[in-house]
Amino acid sequence: MAITVVGSVAFDSIEAPSGKREDLLGGSATYFSVAASKFTDVNLVAVVGDDFPDKQLSFLGKFCDLSGLSQKPGQTFRWSGRYLPDMNQRETLATHLNVFAEFKPEIPEDYTECETAFLANIDPDLQTDVLNALGPDKRMVGLDTMNFWIESKRKSLLKALKKIDVLTINEDELRQICDEHNIWKAGQKALELGPRVVVCKRGEYGSILFTGDQTAALPAFNTPNVIDPTGAGDSFAGAFFGYLDGKDSIYSFEMLMNALVIGTVVASFTVEAFGVEGLVAASQDEIAARRAKLAELSSFGFDFGF
Amino acid sequence: MAITVVGSVAFDSIEAPSGKREDLLGGSATYFSVAASKFTDVNLVAVVGDDFPDKQLSFLGKFCDLSGLSQKPGQTFRWSGRYLPDMNQRETLATHLNVFAEFKPEIPEDYTECETAFLANIDPDLQTDVLNALGPDKRMVGLDTMNFWIESKRKSLLKALKKIDVLTINEDELRQICDEHNIWKAGQKALELGPRVVVCKRGEYGSILFTGDQTAALPAFNTPNVIDPTGAGDSFAGAFFGYLDGKDSIYSFEMLMNALVIGTVVASFTVEAFGVEGLVAASQDEIAARRAKLAELSSFGFDFGF
Repeated sequence: MAITVVGSVAFDSIEAPSGKREDLLGGSATYFSVAASKFTDVNLVAVVGDDFPDKQLSFLGKFCDLSGLSQKPGQTFRWSGRYLPDMNQRETLATHLNVFAEFKPEIPEDYTECETAFLANIDPDLQTDVLNALGPDKRMVGLDTMNFWIESKRKSLLKALKKIDVLTINEDELRQICDEHNIWKAGQKALELGPRVVVCKRGEYGSILFTGDQTAALPAFNTPNVIDPTGAGDSFAGAFFGYLDGKDSIYSFEMLMNALVIGTVVASFTVEAFGVEGLVAASQDEIAARRAKLAELSSFGFDFGF
Repeated sequence: MAITVVGSVAFDSIEAPSGKREDLLGGSATYFSVAASKFTDVNLVAVVGDDFPDKQLSFLGKFCDLSGLSQKPGQTFRWSGRYLPDMNQRETLATHLNVFAEFKPEIPEDYTECETAFLANIDPDLQTDVLNALGPDKRMVGLDTMNFWIESKRKSLLKALKKIDVLTINEDELRQICDEHNIWKAGQKALELGPRVVVCKRGEYGSILFTGDQTAALPAFNTPNVIDPTGAGDSFAGAFFGYLDGKDSIYSFEMLMNALVIGTVVASFTVEAFGVEGLVAASQDEIAARRAKLAELSSFGFDFGF
């Protein structure tokens, strides 16, 4: 039982109403790995530069196997951004892809035995390459993407979507990929592109699960304490797939909903501190307590008498 | 058992990706009255011009008592707006207040006996005047407002809020009135302003109920067929208060949640056609069917085993 994730490891510099931080360990694969490691073993496939400190390597190594992490000459991917006061919108101040620009995922032989894989937001051609390298017989393959690939590599992306099981995607990008403003229609349309499950991420508005047979909407966890939303979506995905890895009946609606709840709760810890700090600190007991609170927030004991 | 609503009756001209309509019967009190009339008797307090057709008067009269509707020399309130392709944002093209600019609500003597009142979005000083005219001993008084009054008559609004029970308000305006971006904090802060219940309306993202003791988030009904969102919030409020009027234990969490569900469902019919057409056509059976579908969309039978 293990999950292989392919994505970015980066240093993020963040400005937010809550404060300013430089060179935080970040990147989609980092957030995903730390979150997933709370539930299963994680194999990390990513690239960093030769500037990547040993200290950070051993930190990452606490959460995942690093034999798929290559270190190349040059600088590690760096991103900086600023959150607007409402914490829902952000502007990118700088993106330096550095060694990530030439990222060619190298899949260690024993990673092909994993049952779950997650293709974080990278070039869809690389996502397909990774899938081929990982080999057949995965129980669940997830994929995330972004507007950049939808616009610049639509064909490649559509090809990759045919081969995966679960699309996790932000709502604006779900609308964009399906060319459909109505989110309920967009979710149904996305199912026709290949995935058997679509998870629409709506930030502070929660998420929607589309399985074709059933649709469910879950609110976000009601945290009053949003410090840094960076990595919330990748933490959500990490917990979602990590929770399901090794479980039975992973495509049952109940199990998928459990995973959605766990993803929502784990993401709520991420946003409560800068970088991965809040995510790392979240204990199983704290996760369980928030799960109960989220259930309270979103289940009502409907009474059908008028 | 009756509910008195004070607000606007207007003619709306709408441009949307779904089409264009002129001089639709609209206004907050119209949508509210038609929605509330599905559950209780409604007293309408509003003003129209001498251009208001008898045909529209008798149409309105099918849903509510019109002895509080005054007809004044001049034109009826006219509003025109355009919805952007996503149907979430709109721009106002023209607002002609006409006779509504001098609106002085006149409360018929027998309206003082109603147990429920709703002060739709009008000048907060008028809202207070209406409350005084309606007299004491109401079981539930609701109030809605907008950015214009929050900015221009904040003191008067805060005074009115001290006297009401339920604030129904859009999320942006909830943030604005409380000067707080985090919606969960804003809801709690709003409770400190006077109301014992706050209902935050989030458009396609649903709604949040704050009672101080409990908070619950409900998704919007998953309609794939959005034609004209005008009046959704007022229909929501009409069904919410109409449903509760005459019920027992109207401040219990269960009863408030039932009302939230009913409001959500009734609003979903409003947005599926231009003007009040969809709202008027919605039968009790159709409302009940959507209530069951909404329950399905938002209740999960949480399983607490990891």
